[in-house]
Amino acid sequence: MKLPVSTEWVLHCATTLAQLEPGASASATQLAQYYDLPAAYLVKQLKLLVKAGVLTANTGPRGGFRLAEPAAGITLLRIVEAVDGESSPYECREIRQQGRGALPPEDCRRTCVLAEKMADAHEAWRRSLAGVTLADILATLPPTAPARTRTRLTGSG
Amino acid sequence: MKLPVSTEWVLHCATTLAQLEPGASASATQLAQYYDLPAAYLVKQLKLLVKAGVLTANTGPRGGFRLAEPAAGITLLRIVEAVDGESSPYECREIRQQGRGALPPEDCRRTCVLAEKMADAHEAWRRSLAGVTLADILATLPPTAPARTRTRLTGSG
Repeated sequence: MKLPVSTEWVLHCATTLAQLEPGASASATQLAQYYDLPAAYLVKQLKLLVKAGVLTANTGPRGGFRLAEPAAGITLLRIVEAVDGESSPYECREIRQQGRGALPPEDCRRTCVLAEKMADAHEAWRRSLAGVTLADILATLPPTAPARTRTRLTGSG
Repeated sequence: MKLPVSTEWVLHCATTLAQLEPGASASATQLAQYYDLPAAYLVKQLKLLVKAGVLTANTGPRGGFRLAEPAAGITLLRIVEAVDGESSPYECREIRQQGRGALPPEDCRRTCVLAEKMADAHEAWRRSLAGVTLADILATLPPTAPARTRTRLTGSG
């Protein structure tokens, strides 16, 4: 199982936007140059974050993307699921109900125990990512990081 | 992210083999008929379980597959990783070191905190699946299950 390559992009872009002055935004071009990423494809990923309520997009000449809410309210889970969806990597096609060993429908009213255990594991993964916010990530950065990020992002440094 | 479709197959086949009499085995053809699965592709998956030490393959006219050790020693994690590998679904390509915002190498000696949090989540997923054995799965089945499974598997029922 693989997450899309863009998962790294959106995690880093959201972390970058979390370092801007309150209310400030950055354009997709600025973010693409900051990380040397293909701008057109990055825009699509950023729009998925807007759709998920993680970012806000401002149109107009001074437009761009910014966090839709404070960094402490945005978990890594929301960012990751914005680009990859919420479904479990395990797909149960109910093979227990087919073939020579097929169980009768009355024995399959409950979810298959194997599917249940796979769902438990997916929930453990989700809980782990739901327990980390962008504010937690920022707290691990050196104190000089936000100023450097802002300067490099606008290309004024 | 998606696990291979065969993940469901191998979880169910291993559960089926765990219900045989000690020392008994089942052929790939029997297992394929039991679940109505494509035999040639199923064999490849079963061989991955052999490679991972979950199953033993016996050759010869009465050959087949059986558990390589007691059900209590075989975790769902081993079965899933036998067909999908052990790597994390998150791929860190170190975009923090590229583009206008590139961090100098001396700031990148430690793993990126985002990659670290994604690895934590993967470990939570692994721990969850490592905490469930085939014996745990068998314990949830009705007491009549093993006899039914053996009869249907050999086609004698």
